[in-house]
Amino acid sequence: MYAYKAPLRDIQFVLYDLLNVEGLYASLPAYASVDRDLMESILNTSAQFAENEVAPLNQSGDEEGCHFQAGVVTTPKGFKDAYRQFMALGFVGLAASPEFGGQGLPHSLDIATGEMNATANWSWSMYYGLSQGAIKTIEAHGTPEQKASFLGKLVTGEWTGTMCLTEPQAGSDLGLIRTRAEPAADGSYRISGTKISISAGEHDMTDNIVHIVLARLPDAPAGSKGISLFIVPKFNLNEDGTLGARNAVACGSIEHKMGIRASATCVMNFDEARGFLIGPPNKGLACMFTFMNSARVHAALQGVCASEGAFQGALAYARDRLAMRSLSGAKSPEKEADPIIVHPAVRSMLLTQKCFAEGGRALLYWLAAQIDRYHHEEDERARKDADDLMSLLTPIAKAFLTEMGSEAAKHGVQVYGGHGFIREWGMEQIVRDTRISTLYEGTTEIQALDLLGRKIIHSRGELLQKFSRIIHQFCAEHRKHPVIGTSVEKLDALNQQWVDLSMKVAFDGMMDPDEVGAAAVDFMYFSGYVTLAYLWAWMAQTAAEKIESGVSEVAFYEAKIKTAQFYFSKILPRAQMHVEVINGGVDVIRQMHEHEFAF
Amino acid sequence: MYAYKAPLRDIQFVLYDLLNVEGLYASLPAYASVDRDLMESILNTSAQFAENEVAPLNQSGDEEGCHFQAGVVTTPKGFKDAYRQFMALGFVGLAASPEFGGQGLPHSLDIATGEMNATANWSWSMYYGLSQGAIKTIEAHGTPEQKASFLGKLVTGEWTGTMCLTEPQAGSDLGLIRTRAEPAADGSYRISGTKISISAGEHDMTDNIVHIVLARLPDAPAGSKGISLFIVPKFNLNEDGTLGARNAVACGSIEHKMGIRASATCVMNFDEARGFLIGPPNKGLACMFTFMNSARVHAALQGVCASEGAFQGALAYARDRLAMRSLSGAKSPEKEADPIIVHPAVRSMLLTQKCFAEGGRALLYWLAAQIDRYHHEEDERARKDADDLMSLLTPIAKAFLTEMGSEAAKHGVQVYGGHGFIREWGMEQIVRDTRISTLYEGTTEIQALDLLGRKIIHSRGELLQKFSRIIHQFCAEHRKHPVIGTSVEKLDALNQQWVDLSMKVAFDGMMDPDEVGAAAVDFMYFSGYVTLAYLWAWMAQTAAEKIESGVSEVAFYEAKIKTAQFYFSKILPRAQMHVEVINGGVDVIRQMHEHEFAF
Repeated sequence: MYAYKAPLRDIQFVLYDLLNVEGLYASLPAYASVDRDLMESILNTSAQFAENEVAPLNQSGDEEGCHFQAGVVTTPKGFKDAYRQFMALGFVGLAASPEFGGQGLPHSLDIATGEMNATANWSWSMYYGLSQGAIKTIEAHGTPEQKASFLGKLVTGEWTGTMCLTEPQAGSDLGLIRTRAEPAADGSYRISGTKISISAGEHDMTDNIVHIVLARLPDAPAGSKGISLFIVPKFNLNEDGTLGARNAVACGSIEHKMGIRASATCVMNFDEARGFLIGPPNKGLACMFTFMNSARVHAALQGVCASEGAFQGALAYARDRLAMRSLSGAKSPEKEADPIIVHPAVRSMLLTQKCFAEGGRALLYWLAAQIDRYHHEEDERARKDADDLMSLLTPIAKAFLTEMGSEAAKHGVQVYGGHGFIREWGMEQIVRDTRISTLYEGTTEIQALDLLGRKIIHSRGELLQKFSRIIHQFCAEHRKHPVIGTSVEKLDALNQQWVDLSMKVAFDGMMDPDEVGAAAVDFMYFSGYVTLAYLWAWMAQTAAEKIESGVSEVAFYEAKIKTAQFYFSKILPRAQMHVEVINGGVDVIRQMHEHEFAF
Repeated sequence: MYAYKAPLRDIQFVLYDLLNVEGLYASLPAYASVDRDLMESILNTSAQFAENEVAPLNQSGDEEGCHFQAGVVTTPKGFKDAYRQFMALGFVGLAASPEFGGQGLPHSLDIATGEMNATANWSWSMYYGLSQGAIKTIEAHGTPEQKASFLGKLVTGEWTGTMCLTEPQAGSDLGLIRTRAEPAADGSYRISGTKISISAGEHDMTDNIVHIVLARLPDAPAGSKGISLFIVPKFNLNEDGTLGARNAVACGSIEHKMGIRASATCVMNFDEARGFLIGPPNKGLACMFTFMNSARVHAALQGVCASEGAFQGALAYARDRLAMRSLSGAKSPEKEADPIIVHPAVRSMLLTQKCFAEGGRALLYWLAAQIDRYHHEEDERARKDADDLMSLLTPIAKAFLTEMGSEAAKHGVQVYGGHGFIREWGMEQIVRDTRISTLYEGTTEIQALDLLGRKIIHSRGELLQKFSRIIHQFCAEHRKHPVIGTSVEKLDALNQQWVDLSMKVAFDGMMDPDEVGAAAVDFMYFSGYVTLAYLWAWMAQTAAEKIESGVSEVAFYEAKIKTAQFYFSKILPRAQMHVEVINGGVDVIRQMHEHEFAF
C-alpha cells in the first residue's frame, strides 16, 4: 500500500501560478480577506489531516466495509473519530455561507481541501461530501424556517444530508419515480416509497440525517413535470429545534458493491414519513438542477483523485521494482536489474496518469473559480459568462475526467503487474472505487447527451462559442511561442474543428435526431481532449513564463512543460479518432434489429 | 444475475462455416474420424454442463471465495462436485494424446468446450485449465518414466498440475528467480524457495498436485540462462505409482485478490522438496516456451469470455430496462418508457461487445486450428506455416483480446448504470475477474515487446509477411465484393500500412533501441485492430456467401454482416490513432528525468 502524499506543490501551481486566485479573490469583495497566508494555512492543515488521519483508514475501510443490522448502519473502525476531528477543524462548511455558520471561503480553495481527503479515502469523504447537495438545495429553495431548522447543523457537520433520487425502476430517467407525497393537515406531507443507491442514507456518525427526497404529489402530472422536492429528517424536530420522535424512514439494507465499500449505500424505505415541501410543487427536478452542477463537479473530482492516487502508487512502485534492462543499456548496472521506470511502456503509463491527474486538477479548480465568479462577480455579464462556462464544462469534466480516472487506475494496476491484482498493494481498490464515478450523478452517456443536446445544440452553440473564443485568444497570443508554439497550433486547429463538428452534428440531428444520440459520447471525448489540451497549453505557457522570470524551481516548471509535450504528442491523437467515429454516422448502429443481437 | 447461455449458433458458424473444420479434420489423419455428429454431441454436452453445472457456481464462488487454514485450501461450495462430474465426462483430456488416456481430439474443438466453461465460471475452469501446461510440458520434455508416472493421472484429471514460475522479486523478469535445486544422491533434487501467484497451487479437488517448478542448479549461470525445470509432486509416489509420503511443499497462504476469488492463488513454500529435473539443465526457460503459447492462448480466451459474458448480461438488461424515449420517437409507446436498447449509446456498447466476443472467438478458434495443423499436417512446410502464424498471432491474441475483454466488461457495467456497480447483478464480477487477464502469462506490455521485438523484428518481418500475404490474397479476391467491398479496401490499405509501420519501427529501433519499447504497445493495438478487421471481413464474406447460397437463417448471417460494418465504421478508426502515437516517437517519453515525475 502506497502512502498518500498531498500534491501541495502542484495545487499551489494551479491556484497561484495558473489561476492567480489571489488576484481573483482580491477582485471579489466576498473573498477580499482571503490571502496567501490563510490559504497556505488551510492547505497545510488539510494536507496533514488527509495524510495522517484519513488515508490510513482507506484500505481498512475497504476491507471491513459497512455493517448493517436491523436498520442500523455502522461505519468502519476509525471513520467516526476522523469525522469528529474533521468537524472540529471546521472543514465541513468551508465554502458555506457565513449566515448559517459557514466559513464563506472560495469554492476554488474548498475543492483543493476536498481533493486531498477524497484521494486519501473517497468513501470516507462521501459522508460529508453528500451533505453539500442538501446544503445547497436548502440554501437555494428553503423557506426561512427550513433554513433556520436545518442549515446550521448541516453546515457544522453535526448532521449530514442525502439526496434521495433513484428508485429501483428509475435511475437515469427520473421521470419514472413513484414515491408519493400525501398532504397532511398540518401543512407537512406523508412520504411513501423506496429509494435505492442512497449514499450515507444511514450511518452512525451523526445524530440526525436530513434527506432531500424526490416524490410525486397526488395530483401531479405524469413524468418529469410532476416531481416535487421534500425535506425528510431522520428524526423530527421539536419546536425548540431539538431532536424529537424518529420519523418513518428506515434503511432496509445496504448494497454490496464493487467498490467504495466503506461508504454506506442504502435502500431507504419511506413509510408515511413526515416531510416538508421545498421549492414549488412539481418543480422538483428544476430545483435539483441548482445543485446538480456542483454534485457533478464533485463526481468529476473522483476522476482526478483516482488519477492522482494511481499515479502516486504506480510511481513509487516503478522507482522501486526491478525487472530487465533498459533496451538502450543498463541504467542501474549496480543492481540486479533496472527499475521498471526506465522502460518506455511504464513511463508512458505514468505520464498518462500525470496528464490526467494534473490536467484534471487544473480543469476542476478552474471550474471552481467560475463558481466563485458566478456567485460573487459584481458585473452581471461576468456572472453570466462564468455561469455559461460552468454549464458547458461541467458535463465534460464529469464524463471525461471520470473515464480518464478509470483509465489511470487501470494503468496503476498494470504498472504493478500481478501485484496490481492483489488487494494488499492498494491499486485494485482504486479501480473498484472509481468505477462508480462514471455511473452516478448521471452516467457518461447521460453527460454526453447533456453536453451535446442541452449545452451545445439547445444554446445554438453560444456556450461553445464563448469557450472557443477564450481558446482562440490564447492561441492568437501564443502561436509564436518558442516553447509551446507547435502545441498551440494543434490546439488552434482542434478548437476550430470543435465548433465545426458541433455544427455538423447539430445539422445532422435536425434531419435525424438519432444522429445526436449516436454522436454524443464521441463528441464528449473529443471535447474532453480539446479542453484538456487547452489546460495543458495554458499550464506549459505559465511554466515557461515562470522559468523566464528566473524562478529557482526550474525542474518543477520544466516537468510541467514536458508533461504538456507528452499530452500533445501521445494523448491528443485520440481526438481525431472520435471525429472519425462520429463521421461513421448512426446507420451502422441502428440497422441491427433488436432480435438480431443474439441467436 | 444473467443466466449464461452457450453461444452454440455462433460457435457452429466459426467452426463449420468460417474455418470449415470438417474439411480440415478430414485432411489430417489424426482427426479423420472427427465428424459433425461427434462435434455436435461434444458441443451440446459441453453447453449443457456449462449452463447447468458450472454457471450456477459463478456468483456463489465469488462471494464465498476460497478458504485457507493451516496449509489446507478448501474451494467454494459445489466446486469439487462439478469437477468430479466434469472428469467423469472425460473432458479434462479432450485434446491430450490417446497414448496417455487422452481423447486426442482437435484443439479447435477443445477450445470451444473450454470457452463455454470459462465464460460460465472462469475461476472454476482454472483448476483444470492450468493442468494443460503441466501436461504439455511433461509430454514434450519428460522422460518415459516421468510420463508414465504423471501423465495418466493428469490427463484423466485425477490429479491437477501447476506452473510455479513467479517469485516475489521475479515476475515479468524470470531471470531474477532464486529458488534453488540441490542434487540428491538418488538423482533427484531438493527444491527450496518461495513461489507466489500459483493458481491451484493447493486445493481439495484431487488427491495429488503436480508442480512444474523453475529453479536454479548450484552451478547455474546468472540470469535467464541458469534456470532449470523440475517436477515436484505434492505427494511423492511409491514404486507402484500409489501415493507415498507428503513432499516438503506447502501452501503458505492464499492471496486476496480483486477477482477470480474462487480460484486459489497460492504462495507455495518449497523446503527441500523432492523434485525431478525435466528437460536439460539450465534450459528451463526454453522448455517453458513450448507450452507458453498454449498458456497464452488460454489467457486470451479469458478476453473472449469476458466479452461474451458481459455482452449476454448487457443485452438482457438493455432489452428489459426502461428509460426515456428514443430521440426519434417512442419505440414502445405502450410502455412507460422505451427499453434502453433503442438508445444509440447503449447499442454502440452492445455492438462493441459483440465485435470483440465474436471476432475474438473467430481469431482464437482459427489460432487453435493452426495448433492442430502444426501438430498434424503431413507436409513440413504446412506445419512451419502454421507454427509461424501461431507465433505471430499469439501475443496479439493474448494482449489485444484481454484488453478488449476488459473494455467489453466495462461496457457491461455501464449498460446497467448504477446496478452495474452492485454485486448481485453480476456485471462488476466480470470486470474484476477479467482484470487479471492483462497481467498473467505476461502483461500486455510484455506481449507487445514479444510481438514487436521477437516476432517481427527478430524474424526480419518474415512472420508478418506471411500473414500479410494471407490478408492480401483475401483482399485481392474480394475487393469488388458487392457487400463488403468497401471494408475490404480499408483492410487492404491497413494491411500494407502494417508492414510499412513494422519496417519504420524496426529502422528507428536500429538507430535507437528505446524506439521499439516506445512503439510496442501501440503497435500491438494496431496489429490487433487489423487482425480483427481481417477476421470480421472474412466472417462477413462467409455470411454473404451463405445468404447467396440460399440458407434459411438469413437473419443470423445478416447480423454478422451488420456487426462487421459496425466494426469497420466504429472500431477500426482506432488503428490510425495508434500510428499517430507511434509517430510521436520516444523523446517525449524519455525526456522526463526520474526525479521530475513528482515534486
